[in-house]
Amino acid sequence: MRLSKLFGKTTRTAKVYDSVNATLLQKAGFIDMVMAGVYNYLPLGLMVLTKIENIIREEMNTVASEVLMTSLSPRSFWEQTQRIDTVDVLMKTSPANDLAKQKNDSEYILNPTHEEMVTPLVQKFVFSYKDLPQAVYQIQTKFRNEPRVKSGLMRGREFRMKDMYSFHASMDDFKAFYEKSKEVYKRIFDRLGIGKETVIALASGGAYTKEYSHEFQTICETGEDTICFDEETNTYYNKEVAPQEKKFKTMRAAEVGNIFPLGDKFTKDWKFSYTNAEGKEAPIYMGSYGIGPSRVMGVIVEKMHDEAGMIWPTSIAPAEVYLIVIGKEADTVKQADALYEELKKQGKSVLYDDRDVSPGQKFSDADLIGVPYRLVVSKKTDGKIEFKKRTGKETQLVSFEELLKLI
Amino acid sequence: MRLSKLFGKTTRTAKVYDSVNATLLQKAGFIDMVMAGVYNYLPLGLMVLTKIENIIREEMNTVASEVLMTSLSPRSFWEQTQRIDTVDVLMKTSPANDLAKQKNDSEYILNPTHEEMVTPLVQKFVFSYKDLPQAVYQIQTKFRNEPRVKSGLMRGREFRMKDMYSFHASMDDFKAFYEKSKEVYKRIFDRLGIGKETVIALASGGAYTKEYSHEFQTICETGEDTICFDEETNTYYNKEVAPQEKKFKTMRAAEVGNIFPLGDKFTKDWKFSYTNAEGKEAPIYMGSYGIGPSRVMGVIVEKMHDEAGMIWPTSIAPAEVYLIVIGKEADTVKQADALYEELKKQGKSVLYDDRDVSPGQKFSDADLIGVPYRLVVSKKTDGKIEFKKRTGKETQLVSFEELLKLI
Repeated sequence: MRLSKLFGKTTRTAKVYDSVNATLLQKAGFIDMVMAGVYNYLPLGLMVLTKIENIIREEMNTVASEVLMTSLSPRSFWEQTQRIDTVDVLMKTSPANDLAKQKNDSEYILNPTHEEMVTPLVQKFVFSYKDLPQAVYQIQTKFRNEPRVKSGLMRGREFRMKDMYSFHASMDDFKAFYEKSKEVYKRIFDRLGIGKETVIALASGGAYTKEYSHEFQTICETGEDTICFDEETNTYYNKEVAPQEKKFKTMRAAEVGNIFPLGDKFTKDWKFSYTNAEGKEAPIYMGSYGIGPSRVMGVIVEKMHDEAGMIWPTSIAPAEVYLIVIGKEADTVKQADALYEELKKQGKSVLYDDRDVSPGQKFSDADLIGVPYRLVVSKKTDGKIEFKKRTGKETQLVSFEELLKLI
Repeated sequence: MRLSKLFGKTTRTAKVYDSVNATLLQKAGFIDMVMAGVYNYLPLGLMVLTKIENIIREEMNTVASEVLMTSLSPRSFWEQTQRIDTVDVLMKTSPANDLAKQKNDSEYILNPTHEEMVTPLVQKFVFSYKDLPQAVYQIQTKFRNEPRVKSGLMRGREFRMKDMYSFHASMDDFKAFYEKSKEVYKRIFDRLGIGKETVIALASGGAYTKEYSHEFQTICETGEDTICFDEETNTYYNKEVAPQEKKFKTMRAAEVGNIFPLGDKFTKDWKFSYTNAEGKEAPIYMGSYGIGPSRVMGVIVEKMHDEAGMIWPTSIAPAEVYLIVIGKEADTVKQADALYEELKKQGKSVLYDDRDVSPGQKFSDADLIGVPYRLVVSKKTDGKIEFKKRTGKETQLVSFEELLKLI
């Protein structure tokens, strides 16, 4: 993309928000705050979000079918599970003015999670043991009226979520799938560039099971959670469930995913059972599996930045290459334009900084935006290309052929 | 995809809904009604929806930058334009229970359209004539509390929408872009397979302009609108604005897109102007441009089906090929499995009907689901492949090499 044509601008203002990710992502023109916990995605931010979601999608497709459930649901769905009065982030909709009220005064629930939706949906298609197991997932906007929102994209009232739900004929089958989902999640966080810093911590299973749930926690100074490491057993715990008597190494972390055994809580509420091979009705066991793509985006910025700006892993950077042209001489512009086209032909994604701004601003925006490789074409590079990694200090002058080997 | 692994099933029930698209899409397991005007997308339906959205995205990217604005907005945004009390489909959110109310009793508007969001967003980045024109679009879920919903995906309370907004330094610049957008829309409807049946009809510009707006209307017996054709001037009008005194040829049509001149209504409300080349403040002219991908999906089913089921244009079919294996003999299954893998290698998308159901059900599901090509492998095909077009009657026995030339 030519930056001169792209909507959104980096800002020079030194406005500091409540978190590094909110500050850098807004300074770099990736996101824009509408109100606390509610952010617009500008083109550069949407590119990153889309890449994160596509990596998640590719890996989820190996174990589940993608669906798209609705945000609105009837109140009766939430009464069925008795959660209508207990979920403290639950919102409902109603007409916003008198005219709307006169025409249709219906109220709906705005789903903050989808157990209430997916259970009756899957129930429509599952009758016997032959129809199990089932696993479906979606990538979607979720709405939660969190009392406190802070930390930029790390906790929002409107945010992106991948949620998977699985349904099983036996506890054994559930457990096997649950273990498999851990491997899928590990692959996802590896590909997102935070695999090494992300650990599985045991956490409370909540009201529906005596089992632990499992949180994927990225070690991060600015994370909201404290996790405890038991060196003897090589196990991490969320502080909430860490046995008091033991001595732990504690550290801060940010939750990037979680997986939950749900037992038969929801299937029972919906009277959703199946006929087993012996012709008898049997309970269905369920699990839920979440990753927040927008939250992950925030956590990655918290982890990967320096004084100059963000440092994106190649897999989710808005582009692979940031190409700067300096000077307006016809030869220079022609070389830069040709390089831009040639890189695109080679399948490279390029942010081409062809704006009419100072070289200083281009260099500082390249660092702020945080694309893996920076290229410069100017009169001084004399037909060659100046190459620099975002994470390196040295520049080198290379030919086009040499460049292709480097990126 | 192997149908045995895919979530969702075709149903044998003869349940008839209020429209052909709702009936066929639910019978074929593409969508699932949650409540009136609110539908879940199952895997096959989501594949079609995603293909429609990607075609729209590719074409929109030639004229605008993609963003993702939020569904929640503060009430003040809608007060700024005085539309808070006049939009009759406007919904607000509030806490759904007492516990939620105690923790955070904020109310938000659930955006049914995004003029109120995009105007202050673009305002943040536009100061002088050098920053204009701007055009941004998003593809997103919209919420409208329509008094009446019917016709399946053709009119929903929660639906998918592509909305673009453009901002211009002069009326001339706006008009040039507006004309260009018509060409972009024509390319989109061509690629979606309804180009020939889709005409531009003049319609009311609404409260903000004396100009006509332009509706893209697909000629369709079951459409909600009536359009009038003036043979003298070769012009279509929405019936609402058709001059009474003239004699028109009238026909039913379904609106699949619309483009609107907005004048300076919204920019004025937000005190959003720019500094022109002479250093003076000048007004900014705006347009909005919508296409509803889910609505388009419904209209295409209305237009393209027969007694046996849906007939998808290749560009948006859930797959190119529906491969049926008949019989459980090892040789037959091996041939079908190998053909499935080989077609995937060739980049073809395949629905592989490997289910343990009768041949009759496989044939009838192939027609119902409406993929362009049907292949059969059985003992009878004797190492070859039976080929049939969804729209044709004849079958032919072909080798793999011959098949590749046909599809």
